[in-house]
Amino acid sequence: MNQNNNRRNFIKTASIGALSTLTISQIAASAFAGSNAKGKKVTIQKGDIILLQGDSITDSGRSKQRQEANMAQSLGNGYALNVAGTLLLKNPEKDLKIHNRGISGNKVYQLAERWQADCIDIKPSVLSIHIGVNDFWHTLTNGYKGTLQTYIDDYKKLLDSTKRQLPDVRLIICEPYAVLGVKSVDKNWYPTFDLFREAASNIADEYDAPFVPYQAAFDKAIKLAPPAYWTVDGVHPSVAGAALMAQTWLEAVKY
Amino acid sequence: MNQNNNRRNFIKTASIGALSTLTISQIAASAFAGSNAKGKKVTIQKGDIILLQGDSITDSGRSKQRQEANMAQSLGNGYALNVAGTLLLKNPEKDLKIHNRGISGNKVYQLAERWQADCIDIKPSVLSIHIGVNDFWHTLTNGYKGTLQTYIDDYKKLLDSTKRQLPDVRLIICEPYAVLGVKSVDKNWYPTFDLFREAASNIADEYDAPFVPYQAAFDKAIKLAPPAYWTVDGVHPSVAGAALMAQTWLEAVKY
Repeated sequence: MNQNNNRRNFIKTASIGALSTLTISQIAASAFAGSNAKGKKVTIQKGDIILLQGDSITDSGRSKQRQEANMAQSLGNGYALNVAGTLLLKNPEKDLKIHNRGISGNKVYQLAERWQADCIDIKPSVLSIHIGVNDFWHTLTNGYKGTLQTYIDDYKKLLDSTKRQLPDVRLIICEPYAVLGVKSVDKNWYPTFDLFREAASNIADEYDAPFVPYQAAFDKAIKLAPPAYWTVDGVHPSVAGAALMAQTWLEAVKY
Repeated sequence: MNQNNNRRNFIKTASIGALSTLTISQIAASAFAGSNAKGKKVTIQKGDIILLQGDSITDSGRSKQRQEANMAQSLGNGYALNVAGTLLLKNPEKDLKIHNRGISGNKVYQLAERWQADCIDIKPSVLSIHIGVNDFWHTLTNGYKGTLQTYIDDYKKLLDSTKRQLPDVRLIICEPYAVLGVKSVDKNWYPTFDLFREAASNIADEYDAPFVPYQAAFDKAIKLAPPAYWTVDGVHPSVAGAALMAQTWLEAVKY
């Protein structure tokens, strides 16, 4: 599929997903079914070391002094904790080790700067990455000069390096999302921000990874409660939004 | 039912529950079905103000500077956050307000000391109380002089006062639990600690409230993974244990 077809299909899928109102229990599954992953899932196996990487949305207040797997303090109070709780509860026989190494404010190049300690040394067998909102947002607010192409190039370079060092790692690529009309997110985000979402989707495809379609999940959820119910500022999830994210993320794995 | 029959049935139910190994998804439902609540549940209604009260297990690192409902910082990183995430995700149309006011180290009389600000003023329509482990534990470790009867008397006095001031409040009574053999919990806890569990069960019965049977949930869970998988010290839950508690708590409500 060439880049133009890819983009047309991406936007078409997003539009179809937005047409009908779903009950909350259908949202995550529906969003995932409509994503480019087309049912591709990562199977959680005995002994898996699961690393959740990203920015503030993953970080979510985790203690930087605690690095142990499976500890609440190390996991923060966002979707990573919620995902860990469910995986650990449902797989007591699998001896899973779940780590959060999200850091607030990170863009892709900042993941790369700390990747040896915060990814490679942890030797994850499952690596979930949720990155991209700052790669765009900080061009509006912080004078960041990176472009869409910077995001794509940096992301692929990071993944290529990761695959060389951890050839068996199973990747999960999560979609950057934003909720228009809540505090930080206004019309100046569009259409450019959508291209970052699309880039993440294409990268998931290229690296044969499940894609976690957070945007579709939030787009569907705001038909059931106001946007501010799901996100505190358009970028960071509320408690309800973090639970929605966890449910959507869990659609990308078999456990 | 007299007190002796009550006690015999309580211990019998606990024993039957321990006989067979269940899958994790059956544990919470099975524990609840075997509890004295006999299917009694609280229905979550539109506009409910839900207050989770208790000790460190409820507190779980919540910020004492943040008091807003439904905020991750105010809810901590334990079962209260997990319960809130699920209720808020699954009931976007109900405009729920969920508060955590657990405080580490609390015994019943310490709830009473702060009850006006930390319960009555919040005007909960649903009030969940999880208290009792310190009422026993601190007699071993802190020189606390309260007895089983102190626990029962203080608890009933607190509930009577609450019902006078909030006549329509729907109560949920949670069981104090302990996991033998993990750090803080040794054979010196028994049989006395079991009487605190039984007292909480009887109080739930007397006040016509669902009883959340955490002990049965943990007893069943430790057949699937070692005790230290579910609790960090025998008293406080791990991330897996907090998810198990949330799942068990949610059995006591219709939502």
